[in-house]
Amino acid sequence: MAEAARFELAALSGSEKGAFLRTLSQALEEALEELVTLMTAETALPETRVRAETARSCGQLRMFADLVEGGDWVDARIDRARPDRQPLPKPDLRSMLRPIGPVAVFCAGNFPLAFSVAGGDSAAAWAAGCPVVVKAHSSHPGTALLVGRKVVESLKECGWPEGSFSLLFGRGKLIGQSLVSHPAIKAVAFTGSRQAGRSIMELAAKRPEPIPVFAEMSSVNPIFVLSGINSTKIEAFAEGLSTSATLGVGQFCTNPGIVFHPGGQWGEEFISHYSGKMAKVAPAPMLNRGICESYEKGLDFLANLQGVEVVRRVFAGTDQDCCKAGVCVLKAKAKDFLDNSSMMEEVFGPATLLVSYESFDQLISIAARMEGQLTSSIFGEEDDLEKCDSLLRILEGKAGRLIFNQFPTGVEVCDSVVHGGPFPATSDSRSTSVGTGAILRFARPVCYQGFPEKTLPHELKDANPLSLRRKEN
Amino acid sequence: MAEAARFELAALSGSEKGAFLRTLSQALEEALEELVTLMTAETALPETRVRAETARSCGQLRMFADLVEGGDWVDARIDRARPDRQPLPKPDLRSMLRPIGPVAVFCAGNFPLAFSVAGGDSAAAWAAGCPVVVKAHSSHPGTALLVGRKVVESLKECGWPEGSFSLLFGRGKLIGQSLVSHPAIKAVAFTGSRQAGRSIMELAAKRPEPIPVFAEMSSVNPIFVLSGINSTKIEAFAEGLSTSATLGVGQFCTNPGIVFHPGGQWGEEFISHYSGKMAKVAPAPMLNRGICESYEKGLDFLANLQGVEVVRRVFAGTDQDCCKAGVCVLKAKAKDFLDNSSMMEEVFGPATLLVSYESFDQLISIAARMEGQLTSSIFGEEDDLEKCDSLLRILEGKAGRLIFNQFPTGVEVCDSVVHGGPFPATSDSRSTSVGTGAILRFARPVCYQGFPEKTLPHELKDANPLSLRRKEN
Repeated sequence: MAEAARFELAALSGSEKGAFLRTLSQALEEALEELVTLMTAETALPETRVRAETARSCGQLRMFADLVEGGDWVDARIDRARPDRQPLPKPDLRSMLRPIGPVAVFCAGNFPLAFSVAGGDSAAAWAAGCPVVVKAHSSHPGTALLVGRKVVESLKECGWPEGSFSLLFGRGKLIGQSLVSHPAIKAVAFTGSRQAGRSIMELAAKRPEPIPVFAEMSSVNPIFVLSGINSTKIEAFAEGLSTSATLGVGQFCTNPGIVFHPGGQWGEEFISHYSGKMAKVAPAPMLNRGICESYEKGLDFLANLQGVEVVRRVFAGTDQDCCKAGVCVLKAKAKDFLDNSSMMEEVFGPATLLVSYESFDQLISIAARMEGQLTSSIFGEEDDLEKCDSLLRILEGKAGRLIFNQFPTGVEVCDSVVHGGPFPATSDSRSTSVGTGAILRFARPVCYQGFPEKTLPHELKDANPLSLRRKEN
Repeated sequence: MAEAARFELAALSGSEKGAFLRTLSQALEEALEELVTLMTAETALPETRVRAETARSCGQLRMFADLVEGGDWVDARIDRARPDRQPLPKPDLRSMLRPIGPVAVFCAGNFPLAFSVAGGDSAAAWAAGCPVVVKAHSSHPGTALLVGRKVVESLKECGWPEGSFSLLFGRGKLIGQSLVSHPAIKAVAFTGSRQAGRSIMELAAKRPEPIPVFAEMSSVNPIFVLSGINSTKIEAFAEGLSTSATLGVGQFCTNPGIVFHPGGQWGEEFISHYSGKMAKVAPAPMLNRGICESYEKGLDFLANLQGVEVVRRVFAGTDQDCCKAGVCVLKAKAKDFLDNSSMMEEVFGPATLLVSYESFDQLISIAARMEGQLTSSIFGEEDDLEKCDSLLRILEGKAGRLIFNQFPTGVEVCDSVVHGGPFPATSDSRSTSVGTGAILRFARPVCYQGFPEKTLPHELKDANPLSLRRKEN
């Protein structure tokens, strides 16, 4: 069905695509109270989060509606013929971005709305003109079904073909693997664990026709505290960090997992403040038992590494059904961190590893050793930032988003955001899964040579009927 | 050395990169007579071709110089802070494209200059700010060495670090495999066979840190002759086709390998004309013995397929040292073509398979069955083009460049060209290896959040000192 719908969707205008995205956005807004009831029950996420995530999802749909109604995103380029050019005439060439074809979207466990059935990946694919086949997440099938029904209703209302959207349910790997392997699927969007993401990447690469995979996987989002940070700011920093590290029970891909901070007196004071702030955070339920078990196992692993010391670890109790996770603060020295790359591995949950360093050279060595990240934050005075150009240059090669004096959680959905980064943060550092840039994952340039005006797409006609910003030669 | 040079190159301004590209372009122009002597001896390509390819290579370097001196390619985006936004303040976010890191470039056997040491891939990578490590092709090591020396001289003249460029020689797979597997390499550009390209893709996907591969591999560049083509144009069409199919002894990736044409009277006449035109083309030396042997083997394979008939095959003689290839014209019926997907495989050389069809439905079935292509051409009257929208929609999903009433060889180097397409034409249909768009393969977006004005890259400063076209909110 997706394959059959492909050509119909590819022929839709920007305003037709915008109309559907707006219809769906409104349908979700109208379903808000139902979503609150269902999603809080399925995920144990608080009501405020459900309301905020619904608003974000609706906002994303409208953002892509704005983008495709405007139309400039197609990157229209025109090189007009020059029949008298020597030694050979120049032909007429015009290009623009066109939909890549049916996209498989895997719902994210930690974003039941914003990165699931009608989340960012689906919105970007529809905006590009691609049919979407969604694999629901077993942690929130009810939410998926409710949103899926809203998608189907909105499609009908807008007269889109049935194959524009399908929703698949089922535990285990069979459905996901069949989806990634299906010849009609031309791209994959995934948010989840490094292991699952990597296996999808491998499956896609082995197909008779390999296809691109946009997997957002694993990131410890390191924070680098420059030695020049004012000691009067320690408490505010510890407060902000604990809020960021425990937001959503630490279940954000931008959760700050490791902090590199000056050792000595400053370090002692910071660890003490941070441990105190974290002590105030009560254990809270995680999204499902698997995530909770992985969290505890990850902490056990980390705590047993040579050079790692547990500052504070809160156990949530033995009742397995509650899936509650307590916070954890661990510490280590930069020297030991550099000796053991296992300390860099992500522990998904409300845990922070505090690593004290003795010199800027150590900080540089650590940055150079880090794997790819979604974000890297630097805290310090403005003057210090200017002096640490060598650190910045390294971090720029490692992360999609560099942050100064702010915490990484809270991803702004806009034109400029980059939610991406080198592996293992994502499978393709040249893309973003948040913001308008996300549409580029599902589009490819197509060139039309020697086509008569009346047969050209509107975007490339001489008269520029859509008033696009184009590159014309 | 490439890893060490990475940060220095990433810090270069557009005008500094432009200066190097122009210096190199001039150095190659000055080496023209040396290139003519060396390259004709190594490749058996005619002098006119060497002169034209040198001009193209120099033009490509200048095109990228223009691009980076202008600077708009970085896609600068700015979302300014809104501290008073409710419920949460909006942070300041700014993004632009930054170099991906060291790029491995494999010289193309069939383009000793334009897609080799200082060819399109290298030029695009340098323009993006990436160090380049080139693997020379064993068919033209002398040309590679000469061009490599010009690169080194130009780098020295412009004060670029040594690691900006390395050139590796050696037959076999060891060097190439080591290069693709090296942790410092962050992207690969390759032009060559489907088999070699696929093995590079698999190697890159298996790395601890998988990296993107931009491989340009295999394309039969189908030509679809609409039934409405005017019969008075048969001879001109046959003439144009034979010129395109034998250009460079058929050793172009855009060589038209298969023509789908109306059967019946029109078809008979066309085949007769085409065979006659091809009869006038004398056997000529191919680039190396391997290519020549593959060509003859490919023809044997094709000629023996059920439903394929040899119309004319010219054998070049038994002298293996000459590596000469004669033309070949084969024919088949659409029905048999649809029954046997082996007929779609590329035979690299001056051969054409003519497939006669009986109905438009057959043409649609064929188009739907085709693998990914660099180009697909349609020949016919303008009125017929308007009526074949269903064919166009399918071809658009299969090829990077759609052409009307022109032959596919002769790739214009400009902003609008797309030299790409779905697998097996390339490994990533979202990219082009020719034209200014090629730079996007070697760049990734990086976002700066909360950075003070003075620490931002010039491209993102409020004052817009480079006068870039930016997206500002």
